[in-house]
Amino acid sequence: MSEPVDASAYVIAPSTGGDGLTRSVSGRDHTGAKVALNVVEERPLTIYLNRQEIITAMTIGDYPEYLATGFLKNQGMLQEPVQAVDYDEELGVVVVRTARATVYEAKVQKKTRTSGCALGTVFGDMMEGLEGLILPDAEIRTSWLYALAARINQTPSLYLNAGAIHGSVLCEADRPLVYMEDVGRHNAVDKIAGWMLAEGVDGADKILYTTGRLTSEMVIKCAIMGIPVLASRSGFTAWGVQIAQQVNLTLIGRLRGRRFVCLAGEARLARDANPEAVADDPKTARRKGAA
Amino acid sequence: MSEPVDASAYVIAPSTGGDGLTRSVSGRDHTGAKVALNVVEERPLTIYLNRQEIITAMTIGDYPEYLATGFLKNQGMLQEPVQAVDYDEELGVVVVRTARATVYEAKVQKKTRTSGCALGTVFGDMMEGLEGLILPDAEIRTSWLYALAARINQTPSLYLNAGAIHGSVLCEADRPLVYMEDVGRHNAVDKIAGWMLAEGVDGADKILYTTGRLTSEMVIKCAIMGIPVLASRSGFTAWGVQIAQQVNLTLIGRLRGRRFVCLAGEARLARDANPEAVADDPKTARRKGAA
Repeated sequence: MSEPVDASAYVIAPSTGGDGLTRSVSGRDHTGAKVALNVVEERPLTIYLNRQEIITAMTIGDYPEYLATGFLKNQGMLQEPVQAVDYDEELGVVVVRTARATVYEAKVQKKTRTSGCALGTVFGDMMEGLEGLILPDAEIRTSWLYALAARINQTPSLYLNAGAIHGSVLCEADRPLVYMEDVGRHNAVDKIAGWMLAEGVDGADKILYTTGRLTSEMVIKCAIMGIPVLASRSGFTAWGVQIAQQVNLTLIGRLRGRRFVCLAGEARLARDANPEAVADDPKTARRKGAA
Repeated sequence: MSEPVDASAYVIAPSTGGDGLTRSVSGRDHTGAKVALNVVEERPLTIYLNRQEIITAMTIGDYPEYLATGFLKNQGMLQEPVQAVDYDEELGVVVVRTARATVYEAKVQKKTRTSGCALGTVFGDMMEGLEGLILPDAEIRTSWLYALAARINQTPSLYLNAGAIHGSVLCEADRPLVYMEDVGRHNAVDKIAGWMLAEGVDGADKILYTTGRLTSEMVIKCAIMGIPVLASRSGFTAWGVQIAQQVNLTLIGRLRGRRFVCLAGEARLARDANPEAVADDPKTARRKGAA
C-alpha cells in the first residue's frame, strides 16, 4: 500500500478514533486468546423540525447538526431557511428551527390524522423532490475517478481503524473535500448535505463518492443535493439505475482498481485515463466488496 | 473454490435469478466496451397492520408476507395471532390482519396525537421488547461455525449472481435451513422471522448467520426471535455488543476463514475445531469485507 494521504488536504477529514467515536471492547478470538477490539459507537439521535418529532436515526454521533439539517433537506422537509439548530447531547436530540412552521409539519399532521402514520410519507416525499429534476451538464474525467478512489482508500479513517462503517466523500475534480463516515446507512451522505447547506456549497461541479451500494435512496439523495455524479466501489439496484437515468445522473459502480461500470449518464464521462496504467484489484477483493 | 452446495438441502434456498428478482441493465465498462449487468430489483412495499399503515420498506420483492409479519413481530407490534395476510402485488401493499385491533395501533394513534409522529416509536418499541429477556442456554460448536460459513459462502445465491444484496441464514447445528436475501438492510432477517412465525419454529436451538454488520438493530431482532447465537463475517458496533451482553446472546463477528472474534456470550462456545485445520481467507478479502 502506498503512503497515507495527507488529511490536511481535506476541508473535513475523517476521524481516526480516540475522540469518543470508537470504544475498545474485549473478547476472544478463534484461538481462544483474549483480544481487545476497537469498535465504532452507535447512538440514537432524535431529530425534531420545530416542535415536530421526525425520526430517530442510529448514528456514530459526530456532526449531529449536519446530520439533522441534511436529513431534513434531503427528505424535502426543509422549505424554510434554517434559523437555529440546537443539539442536546445528553438527550440525544437535535431541534432544527425555522422562522415559520413549514408545509411539511402540516403534512405530517394531516397524514397522521388520515392514514394514521407518518412513516409511509418519507419515501413518497423524496420521490416528489425529483419531479422535473434534470441534473446539469458537467465533465467527469476518468483520471479523476481513479485518483479519487486511490486517495480515499488511502486516507486514515474510522473504517481503517475499526471497520463496520460506511463512508461518503464530497469531491471536486480529483480532490476529496469532505469525508463523512457513519454506521447508519445514509447518515454519511446526509451529514455532507448538512455541511453543504450550512456553507452554501453548490453541488453542480461536485462528485459524490460512497462505499455503499447504489440503491434508489442513495441516488435520490445525490440528485436532490444537485450533484451530477455518484460513484461507488459497490454495486447497483435496478431502481437506482432507473432513477439515475431519469434525472440524468452519471452513475458509476464497482469502481475497483482499474475497473468500473457506468450505467447512466455516460455522456459526462471523458475517458482521458488509460485503464491499463492503473493497478488492478486482486480478484478476491472485487468479489467480496460487491455487496 | 470447492463445489457449490446442493441447494435442495435447504428448507428455503436462495434464488439464483431468472425469477424477476434481477434485471439485465446495459452500460459501459472502464474500457468503454458495452456491458450487460445483472442487477437486483428494488421495490417499495407498504405494510399495514389491520387498517393502520406502518411503514414502506424497500425490498427485492420475494416473500412479502413473511417480510410483513416478520417485521411487525420483530418490532413488537404483533400482540395478537395473525388471522390473514393479504398481498396486493400491483399496489405493493401487504395487510396483516389480526382478530382484534392490537395495543400497538392504539399506541401509534396516541403517539401521533401527542408528539405528532410515529417514526420515533419504532426504536423505542424494539428496546421495550428486550426488557427482562435473557436468551436460553445452548451449545455452539466452533466446528459448526466453520462448516456453516463454508456452506453458506458456496451456496448459489443472488449475491453470487448479481451482488449488492445482504443475506441472512437460519441454521441448526451445522445445517443452513432458510437462506433469505434482500436489498433492504434488515429485511432478510425479518423474512426469516416471518417464516418462523408461520411455521411455528422455535429459535432456542438455532443460529442466525448474516452477511451484514452486527449493529444494535440486528442484535435486537435476533434476541426478539429467541435465537441465542448471531454470527457474521462483518464487524461490530459498540451498542450491538452491549445489548448482546445484556441479553446473553453469543455474538460472533469477523468470521472469515479460520478467524473470528466473540465479543459476548463466550460461555456457549465449545471450541471443538482446530482453527489451524481451516483454510484462511486472503488478507485483502478480510479487510474489504469488514464494513
